[in-house]
Amino acid sequence: MSERLAAPLSHEDQCIQSMPDASPAKWHLAHTTWFFERFVLAPRAGYRIFDPRFESIFNSYYLGLGTPFTRAERGLLTRPGVEDVMAYRRHVDDAMRDLLDDPKLFKLVELGLHHEQQHQELLLTDIKHAFSRNPLLPAYDPAGPLAMDVSSRLEWFEHCGGIAAIGHEGPGFSFDNERSRHDVMLRPFRLAARPVTCGDYLEFIADGGYARPEFWLSDGWALAQREDWQAPLYWLPGGRTIFTLHGARPLNPGEPVVHVSFYEAAAYAAWAGKRLPTEFEWEAVASEHPVKGNFLDPAQLHPRAARAEDGSRLFGDAWVWTRSSYDPYPGFRPFSGVASEYNGKFMVGQMVLRGGSCATPQDHIRPSYRNFFPPSARWQFSGIRLAEDA
Amino acid sequence: MSERLAAPLSHEDQCIQSMPDASPAKWHLAHTTWFFERFVLAPRAGYRIFDPRFESIFNSYYLGLGTPFTRAERGLLTRPGVEDVMAYRRHVDDAMRDLLDDPKLFKLVELGLHHEQQHQELLLTDIKHAFSRNPLLPAYDPAGPLAMDVSSRLEWFEHCGGIAAIGHEGPGFSFDNERSRHDVMLRPFRLAARPVTCGDYLEFIADGGYARPEFWLSDGWALAQREDWQAPLYWLPGGRTIFTLHGARPLNPGEPVVHVSFYEAAAYAAWAGKRLPTEFEWEAVASEHPVKGNFLDPAQLHPRAARAEDGSRLFGDAWVWTRSSYDPYPGFRPFSGVASEYNGKFMVGQMVLRGGSCATPQDHIRPSYRNFFPPSARWQFSGIRLAEDA
Amino acid sequence: MSERLAAPLSHEDQCIQSMPDASPAKWHLAHTTWFFERFVLAPRAGYRIFDPRFESIFNSYYLGLGTPFTRAERGLLTRPGVEDVMAYRRHVDDAMRDLLDDPKLFKLVELGLHHEQQHQELLLTDIKHAFSRNPLLPAYDPAGPLAMDVSSRLEWFEHCGGIAAIGHEGPGFSFDNERSRHDVMLRPFRLAARPVTCGDYLEFIADGGYARPEFWLSDGWALAQREDWQAPLYWLPGGRTIFTLHGARPLNPGEPVVHVSFYEAAAYAAWAGKRLPTEFEWEAVASEHPVKGNFLDPAQLHPRAARAEDGSRLFGDAWVWTRSSYDPYPGFRPFSGVASEYNGKFMVGQMVLRGGSCATPQDHIRPSYRNFFPPSARWQFSGIRLAEDA
Amino acid sequence: MSERLAAPLSHEDQCIQSMPDASPAKWHLAHTTWFFERFVLAPRAGYRIFDPRFESIFNSYYLGLGTPFTRAERGLLTRPGVEDVMAYRRHVDDAMRDLLDDPKLFKLVELGLHHEQQHQELLLTDIKHAFSRNPLLPAYDPAGPLAMDVSSRLEWFEHCGGIAAIGHEGPGFSFDNERSRHDVMLRPFRLAARPVTCGDYLEFIADGGYARPEFWLSDGWALAQREDWQAPLYWLPGGRTIFTLHGARPLNPGEPVVHVSFYEAAAYAAWAGKRLPTEFEWEAVASEHPVKGNFLDPAQLHPRAARAEDGSRLFGDAWVWTRSSYDPYPGFRPFSGVASEYNGKFMVGQMVLRGGSCATPQDHIRPSYRNFFPPSARWQFSGIRLAEDA
Repeated sequence: MSERLAAPLSHEDQCIQSMPDASPAKWHLAHTTWFFERFVLAPRAGYRIFDPRFESIFNSYYLGLGTPFTRAERGLLTRPGVEDVMAYRRHVDDAMRDLLDDPKLFKLVELGLHHEQQHQELLLTDIKHAFSRNPLLPAYDPAGPLAMDVSSRLEWFEHCGGIAAIGHEGPGFSFDNERSRHDVMLRPFRLAARPVTCGDYLEFIADGGYARPEFWLSDGWALAQREDWQAPLYWLPGGRTIFTLHGARPLNPGEPVVHVSFYEAAAYAAWAGKRLPTEFEWEAVASEHPVKGNFLDPAQLHPRAARAEDGSRLFGDAWVWTRSSYDPYPGFRPFSGVASEYNGKFMVGQMVLRGGSCATPQDHIRPSYRNFFPPSARWQFSGIRLAEDA
Repeated sequence: MSERLAAPLSHEDQCIQSMPDASPAKWHLAHTTWFFERFVLAPRAGYRIFDPRFESIFNSYYLGLGTPFTRAERGLLTRPGVEDVMAYRRHVDDAMRDLLDDPKLFKLVELGLHHEQQHQELLLTDIKHAFSRNPLLPAYDPAGPLAMDVSSRLEWFEHCGGIAAIGHEGPGFSFDNERSRHDVMLRPFRLAARPVTCGDYLEFIADGGYARPEFWLSDGWALAQREDWQAPLYWLPGGRTIFTLHGARPLNPGEPVVHVSFYEAAAYAAWAGKRLPTEFEWEAVASEHPVKGNFLDPAQLHPRAARAEDGSRLFGDAWVWTRSSYDPYPGFRPFSGVASEYNGKFMVGQMVLRGGSCATPQDHIRPSYRNFFPPSARWQFSGIRLAEDA
Repeated sequence: MSERLAAPLSHEDQCIQSMPDASPAKWHLAHTTWFFERFVLAPRAGYRIFDPRFESIFNSYYLGLGTPFTRAERGLLTRPGVEDVMAYRRHVDDAMRDLLDDPKLFKLVELGLHHEQQHQELLLTDIKHAFSRNPLLPAYDPAGPLAMDVSSRLEWFEHCGGIAAIGHEGPGFSFDNERSRHDVMLRPFRLAARPVTCGDYLEFIADGGYARPEFWLSDGWALAQREDWQAPLYWLPGGRTIFTLHGARPLNPGEPVVHVSFYEAAAYAAWAGKRLPTEFEWEAVASEHPVKGNFLDPAQLHPRAARAEDGSRLFGDAWVWTRSSYDPYPGFRPFSGVASEYNGKFMVGQMVLRGGSCATPQDHIRPSYRNFFPPSARWQFSGIRLAEDA
Repeated sequence: MSERLAAPLSHEDQCIQSMPDASPAKWHLAHTTWFFERFVLAPRAGYRIFDPRFESIFNSYYLGLGTPFTRAERGLLTRPGVEDVMAYRRHVDDAMRDLLDDPKLFKLVELGLHHEQQHQELLLTDIKHAFSRNPLLPAYDPAGPLAMDVSSRLEWFEHCGGIAAIGHEGPGFSFDNERSRHDVMLRPFRLAARPVTCGDYLEFIADGGYARPEFWLSDGWALAQREDWQAPLYWLPGGRTIFTLHGARPLNPGEPVVHVSFYEAAAYAAWAGKRLPTEFEWEAVASEHPVKGNFLDPAQLHPRAARAEDGSRLFGDAWVWTRSSYDPYPGFRPFSGVASEYNGKFMVGQMVLRGGSCATPQDHIRPSYRNFFPPSARWQFSGIRLAEDA
């Protein structure tokens, strides 16, 4: 899948880094392979390291494995070229093939696969950002769909509150940040049955949403003023066209709004007279529904408006910002060994998002899955779901 | 009390702003008076505004009252001078005197008094920062004490977990961020009976605490490297002398360590094999103890080592960083009217601190009191209290 | 004179530093005294250093005398207070009094006096900047004049070109940067007989001067866009009022325009179809005229419109930017000893200004005097004089 | 030649921009073609614009032709791809072929060819910078030579001073900044007969050159401290290996030192007890010698140590920094029309370099040729030539 996602990209496209938060497509391909090489293969006798110089340049942030190459300079790596990275992937894939059945390695291999899924989503959101900065506005896939569906009425899930069990438990895979499973107390609340749409969000804008500080968190207002935000990221001037992975397209009022920061999500909710759900409220409702929705499908790399056949729309389309900071759960213990740096060290200054997006592989998501980004981040497929006290 | 705290300062001292987070002493004096003028007096017929130009320059962040003067430029206000600010305070105090018994105003006046207490603490921490940047290291009060008490053994409060009621309820004053009172689920835990001392912290430093990324949150490590942190703020080179409001003094191993960021607190706890308490854990224990401790006393503006006569040391000396982000409580509703901007708009990107410090007026503190600062902040009297799972 | 210039300032006013390029008034007073102490008194047996801690904090940039206190932090020095600085001045003045007749010290004492004159001008331009940043717009001297004279017609000095002797020679004082006196070749040219006036400059603005890149140097255009320049520094919104040391005053079309950068001066000249003179052209003309003009007079701290009794207006009112970079003259040799850092190390990236201003002591100026500032500087009394090829 | 210089580069290499001052190789190829299209072809009836979107993205700084695409973002242009740029070049080359003999266009075509030569040098210095930032240190041409010649003794040209004619005159091509030809007065001086070598420069380093402020201009010292300069750019840690377009190579003491800033050149000269020549001194000597030296030769992209058969070494190998700011000559008039922005608007804040380098096409250089860069620039082949008063 990773190679397939990179296929529409030229060598130049794969090399670019358009902001420090993003990485080149080629780097994503190499780093996920590096993860298998460093965590699974390197400790084993008999494995031949593909190129010892890759140890640093494709290390993301594992200080336990030495000093990683500076994140903001990944775009400087014109060498190794795309061909070299592909050879690296083949070398490591071949070595991994022999080990897939080794039960002692199962946990690490499983982590490596889930890790690669995370980077598949990032590869798409990162190239979308890069293309958006090119005045030619290239399309990742020019042949994408152009449905103009109508919006659905906003309905609500009711929840009666009380003690809810939160987090992952049991045999299936989960990240360390989903554990330990623990009880939380909830008050009765309502959770919107669908994300906020572009049509909804246009009303917020029309009502002066970006010019009225009373709806905004202080940091958000300061940032929005400093960067002159007037609409979500990727809305083109005029406000009726948006840039997508399928190129510039007319804005579809029925589709979920994406590429908003937590600050915009919170301001929208305040304007609407509602609030954002906590991550616990979201999970309490979502765990009662099947994991079904518009997930990664290379033919449609954009959220979809609701269709009659959709059931609940709790998963897919757009990650939704919750009103929960990314704090550790009670009893949190990082993965052991080198993977201990995977999640825990990022547990400050970030907000939790839930539910997956149109760029998330379907089998990557669980009701207990916690995604997290700084409240200022806009380049992910991040959207809004409302809640209110019952 | 505010005037008394400013008394040791020259006019020049009162005008200085040594970083954007801090404010001049004179500005604190004027702003707390401004709060009474704008919130209580200005809406009343017959009140004469002291100087209409003060409306903007002494507004801190109330966008509902117009555009405040740029925060980072408060140090430019050599005019109005200290004498003018004192005249402003007298003018407003006189007008307030007639209204103190008006029951309709009671809530606002009470808020104004608690507001002024907060700025009394800030006046001290801000001038401490300013003096620390002066190569002459002036002392706010050169006559302060020089006790060298020994440290006490670390003991623990045990808590059996279960449902705990958190937040403020009832007739006494509280800020809106302490409400609504609600239940949380706790697991059994232990809370340290005293804060971490300088002596404890010296061991962390000696063991390479500032050079070992495995203890640190990622943002904290990056910041510590960028700013070359080797010890808490105000520890002078050599590590055996610290700058205090009483001037440079030998470090007392028995006294609580202060002027650490959340990042340092979390790194220390990881190094110690413990963790920081959540704000709920702290409150569950603290609400069972009397509010007693080393609070604001102009004769001793520094944390004290434990003495035999001390009982529990849950309050005073040092605010302690909790492992809780500053999120809204369930059912949170901001103050009504112009005071709605008081707390709610800051509920992102900050961590909760609890318990008050040696610079906090004693009657300002409650077990439900939530202080909050960004995880990078070091110029408050912020310290560390350990916790662990039972 | 220095004390007299500081007299209208409060202690708070004297402590402020409103940008890194400016210094507090108190610091100017102390630094000029420091210059005498370090350069003249300290090397002499028997002199008692006033306070050894002043050696660093009042050192401007003499690396040969140790590491100076960080320039941008001079505003942090609330201590030593104004009273302490005055005591410092008295201490040094007393010690100097006994040495004034010592012929061996004459050169250094003379340099110290000229040095102090330079700081008298800076004291005024620095406090003007500080007051301009205060929303109350305080006046240094509220009682200043308010003449609204008419502008004079623009006339020209003719010069026939050829070999001109440039620079200082002979017994009188000069800075090292005015030497050695050397010949330059000039082509025939004309030099404007008066500086450009505010009225002239208003035409440039009205004709879109700040919006037409064709008149601008590339760096200047970029800076003007970045900082949104629409008029000279200190012109208040609306363009008909300017902030002066006498407070906000109606703009007088007849008075020389000041507080323009080199970039604006060059753009104005291009718009006018003329050019700026080289420093050699200016000196070739100026050396044929008496040094007469509107120099420092505490009763009028602003350029004056021309009056009938004025003769040539080559000196005073406004320093004029020349089209000459501040390069060393042939045979340039820095002062010997610690004063070697006085001028030479700044000979890159700056432009030469000539003629003195309304804030320059009259006996400080010579035809060969070279002032210099970066092309972006606007807070000096810097203006424009046109030239053209004959 | 341009295509030939790009030939060793992958598509990824050609897309990269490693700092705002540098441009991608692909962009250089497109921009030089754009120059012909916009300046020569576009105004002519019948010419078909290749792609109207290129008008902005390949405009460097000609504001008279609309707003150029942001310089610092040229690396974002993964599209148009290298293939597209090559097609663009063919399209324009074909159209130009028909016009080469048109005498009315001769001046513009000639300018376009000289313009392309300038970008050939920049293509090389820019990719050198990009490769130097890659931890793999790729070689542009791994097969380059590895001569270790010995240094030659330093000899001097004598010049008796007097009136010298400077600048270009006559039928051959020159840039506008070389005109008008005019007389300057020179004092007797000596000019070094060869550039300063790496061996010479090692002595400066060994003598603490980078740690002794007395040799440095103030801005240079500040920059060197801030960026921790210890050697010229591209000298690898240890100081005995340098990064070249032929990869990392042992430092050759006999070869001219390059990649020094003006600040380093001036500091070296001060340490050596000499000075840098003015641009007039250099030209007065150089105009008496044939234009001969080590110019652009793709087989050797690095300065060469002196060989017996070399005559005077005034040209080639390394541009030499002069002690002359880049000011306009008397009578300077920019090119007419759109080319007026070519040179004049950059005449502030830069220093003049003379003589050409190992990356300059030989027929591009004249004795009157003025190159210019800011004093901080190090990524060009910039070196040092000493001078002294006779």
